[in-house]
Amino acid sequence: MTWYNTRGSNDDVVLSTRIRLARNIADYPFMSMCDRESAEKIIESVTNALSADYKSVDFSKLSDTQARAYVEEHLVSPEFACANMPRSLLLNEEKGIAVMVCEEDHVRLQCILSGMNTDEAYKNACEADDILSQKLNIAWDEKLGYLTQCPTNLGTGMRVSLMMFLPALTEARRIGQLSASLSKLGLTIRGLYGEGSDASGCLYQVSNQITLGISEEDTIKKLNEVAVQIIEAERKLRSVMKSDSHDALCDRVMRAYGTMKNAYLMSTGEFMELFSSVRLGIALGMLDKISYDKLGDVAIRIQPSVLTVNAGHSLGESERDRARADLLRKELNG
Amino acid sequence: MTWYNTRGSNDDVVLSTRIRLARNIADYPFMSMCDRESAEKIIESVTNALSADYKSVDFSKLSDTQARAYVEEHLVSPEFACANMPRSLLLNEEKGIAVMVCEEDHVRLQCILSGMNTDEAYKNACEADDILSQKLNIAWDEKLGYLTQCPTNLGTGMRVSLMMFLPALTEARRIGQLSASLSKLGLTIRGLYGEGSDASGCLYQVSNQITLGISEEDTIKKLNEVAVQIIEAERKLRSVMKSDSHDALCDRVMRAYGTMKNAYLMSTGEFMELFSSVRLGIALGMLDKISYDKLGDVAIRIQPSVLTVNAGHSLGESERDRARADLLRKELNG
Repeated sequence: MTWYNTRGSNDDVVLSTRIRLARNIADYPFMSMCDRESAEKIIESVTNALSADYKSVDFSKLSDTQARAYVEEHLVSPEFACANMPRSLLLNEEKGIAVMVCEEDHVRLQCILSGMNTDEAYKNACEADDILSQKLNIAWDEKLGYLTQCPTNLGTGMRVSLMMFLPALTEARRIGQLSASLSKLGLTIRGLYGEGSDASGCLYQVSNQITLGISEEDTIKKLNEVAVQIIEAERKLRSVMKSDSHDALCDRVMRAYGTMKNAYLMSTGEFMELFSSVRLGIALGMLDKISYDKLGDVAIRIQPSVLTVNAGHSLGESERDRARADLLRKELNG
Repeated sequence: MTWYNTRGSNDDVVLSTRIRLARNIADYPFMSMCDRESAEKIIESVTNALSADYKSVDFSKLSDTQARAYVEEHLVSPEFACANMPRSLLLNEEKGIAVMVCEEDHVRLQCILSGMNTDEAYKNACEADDILSQKLNIAWDEKLGYLTQCPTNLGTGMRVSLMMFLPALTEARRIGQLSASLSKLGLTIRGLYGEGSDASGCLYQVSNQITLGISEEDTIKKLNEVAVQIIEAERKLRSVMKSDSHDALCDRVMRAYGTMKNAYLMSTGEFMELFSSVRLGIALGMLDKISYDKLGDVAIRIQPSVLTVNAGHSLGESERDRARADLLRKELNG
């Protein structure tokens, strides 16, 4: 079980919570100056520090597709997946922890949980971080805080982010305005899939921009406060949509569900469109034949690289479209 | 059970067979010259002649919607439904017989059976026709045969027609060419729904044009021979479609089925489009979750007036679209 196939708090709007801590080991240069030998030593140190509770994945041994599958599961960054340096991922599924070793910083420790759950995510991340601090010489400065390769992460080295599902705010064209307001608060919103304002699937990541001059606790508190307001705004608009255009909305939801369940060919892009309508339908009580966790589960499993890895052999684009539809028919009619 | 919800021979292509006999009673003027009093007497005579095996429906007592529902079930002509004269429909469901009294001719005796079944349809029609001949003074001339109001029906007064489902010939744009060939043989093809060459639902009626100088048996034989050729051509083209574009076709079929089963709003026009894809899917073995008889049954029950009559109260267009989708969801998910 991972973040995407379990249910969490406020999951009509918040799919997942991520807390990411950037850390570096003082004994080695930052990654931009690091040679392969040092990178390997860093991996060894971090792996040893975190011990047996973590599964280790050596990314230099993965195929491109295997590496991209981890990106699609939101466990590693795209940069990490395609880098040339030695690099490793350490995973503790139970705690929702994924540690990228040798990404932009020596250590990118993340805790990813379903729903809105910053408290537990922070607790789990801190526990793992404490272990690293005890066992490794973490680069830290009394005045600046944690030292990071990129100055935008200096200080707490922490990024808190919520993956939010905002179909009503999107349809009401209020994301631009929301983005402007958030930016004044040192927060940011960006589409998770697709570029610009048209986020495919109406999925957005809301996170803090500022890591310097603010404590971890205050960062989390501020993000939570703002998230509550976004959640309320989204829910209010959904109610308006539901009462203003119930039949047309219900029709859109049910057709999307029918297509998802029956199609014989399906692209990822089309799936994300349908995903948004189906998820909204569940939230509005128009559709009870599928649950958030089931939908979340297939939404990851139909991603191109995850699909290919699970097939066990390479797939061309049209084969993927068929395999994707096969998976959906099987899972949703089961 | 009626023609549209039972299965028949060659029903991958032929939905139904109709034999229609035009008859007039010599004691009364043709309908164009007939007064209301005579019309009532004609109705009385025919009703008495056919006796208790027939259910009688007095069309002058029906609402417009009720009358149109019989048109949608293909039991009466649109002209009959909206005429102002006294008129009556006599029905024997077991034999598939529907007799319009006081249509263009005094009597339009029809036998409608599912699938391709001219022999039984002709036998049933003749039995009923024999009863009328024994009990009524049917207008008949030794040289001309049966006398009818419109000279195009003179002679046998018989129209044999097959309702054919021709999606592959339609997609290959071969209906125009077929129509030209048929016309040389004294046969005709026309779209059952919609105007011109774009028959909604890919349903066509193939029938004889000529009633004079040819026997009933020869008319039926000729139509059957040509129908067999059309059926073969349609089947051959379907196989080609299936092997040339299996995945895209299967996708179209399954999406149509998914939409039909799940939509919350549905117009008649959209239904007929979906109907065509779903019916083709059954024929090609791509879809086994729905049968021809089930599909045929809902295709009549979703027609606007049948839907309204069954609802028991008047429905606006958008209410009908919802009721239509409700019916489909209920029937196809049952």
